[in-house]
Amino acid sequence: MKPRAVVLLSGGLDSTTVLALAREAGFDSHCLSFRYGQRHAHELDCAARVAQALGATRHVVADIDLRVFGGSALTSDIEVPKGRDPDDHSGGIPITYVPARNTVFLSYALAWAEVLDSSDVFIGVNALDYSGYPDCRPAFIAAFETMANLATRAGVEGRRLRIHTPLIELSKAQIIAEGRRLGVDYAMTTSCYDPAPDGRACGACDACQLRARGFAALGLEDPALAGR
Amino acid sequence: MKPRAVVLLSGGLDSTTVLALAREAGFDSHCLSFRYGQRHAHELDCAARVAQALGATRHVVADIDLRVFGGSALTSDIEVPKGRDPDDHSGGIPITYVPARNTVFLSYALAWAEVLDSSDVFIGVNALDYSGYPDCRPAFIAAFETMANLATRAGVEGRRLRIHTPLIELSKAQIIAEGRRLGVDYAMTTSCYDPAPDGRACGACDACQLRARGFAALGLEDPALAGR
Repeated sequence: MKPRAVVLLSGGLDSTTVLALAREAGFDSHCLSFRYGQRHAHELDCAARVAQALGATRHVVADIDLRVFGGSALTSDIEVPKGRDPDDHSGGIPITYVPARNTVFLSYALAWAEVLDSSDVFIGVNALDYSGYPDCRPAFIAAFETMANLATRAGVEGRRLRIHTPLIELSKAQIIAEGRRLGVDYAMTTSCYDPAPDGRACGACDACQLRARGFAALGLEDPALAGR
Repeated sequence: MKPRAVVLLSGGLDSTTVLALAREAGFDSHCLSFRYGQRHAHELDCAARVAQALGATRHVVADIDLRVFGGSALTSDIEVPKGRDPDDHSGGIPITYVPARNTVFLSYALAWAEVLDSSDVFIGVNALDYSGYPDCRPAFIAAFETMANLATRAGVEGRRLRIHTPLIELSKAQIIAEGRRLGVDYAMTTSCYDPAPDGRACGACDACQLRARGFAALGLEDPALAGR
């Protein structure tokens, strides 16, 4: 029997690549997405298509309710910034940061891993072409893994629970190259913070810019922006 | 202005005492409860009453969905054990353990603390009269605090986020004595894992037994079991 893994899957470029890598590594992949009050439910449709296309064993969407706290452009009525330099972190943590989001997401993944008797959780965080969020840093992931091994049955029973971050040191171009090597069709994915009602990417938010730049570095066009 | 704290409040004996202690320590207390697929929504009514009676600034109930994963007697159709010795941990982690529950609860508290610009989270975990759950141990709390300071704006900006566990070294009798000192009316609280539809405690599950024993040690009757 293949080992089981829980894979956090948003339907974006990064998490889709992570799923392809977890499958390549031989994991029976249980994908987890969230309906967390994000403006764009479109990404959940992408996640479902990606899970099926990449041979996930199961795909679960958990309803979580971060809107009760407010505080982010991704979950409240604050406007998503457009056309700014995504490498400019001089303004501190950007307004699109969702408070403690990766902590909450990884906690759910941990709960599911416990139920599945799985010791492996995959997440597509990235410390290079990132948006300045504190919960994407390697030190955060390491601390979460330490905590997770104290929080759970796995830790008590002497198994070692691992948080896998295969993208953490890769550039966006390297991530895309990995996915293409594994046959990922990025036209299925969405990364935009503020897509049109039909799901079309805006092309101007930080996420769209970082992604387009990754494709450009490989001499490719982002299929999410094809024909613009 | 008083400093703000997030207080995890289940409506049980422990978290009610924690709220009283947070108020005594001078915190503007923002109470957080969860609708997490527990069998007994009655405890949310208790939490609301307690929050009001003890002068909480706000009480929010977040909907979370741990049932999608299954795996615990508190959130699925597995039967709650009755009449067993609550100190007998020979069977390992009990079936009433909800996978990663405190990790998920604390993650939400962290999210709210970020939005409130608060550096203080209170939780009523207890390492003595506890039920053998891994996520009630001091080492887990310490690891969560370390992780939390890497996960959030507070950590990046050099503030120190603290997870307060004022009950962690107290016996159930000591907890009750603290609450009585602060005028807490424990008739408002519920701790039972399997109450009747009208909210009456069963008196036989681990939580009921631990609580009744705490009152008995003080020569008192548990008001939740009065007249049995």
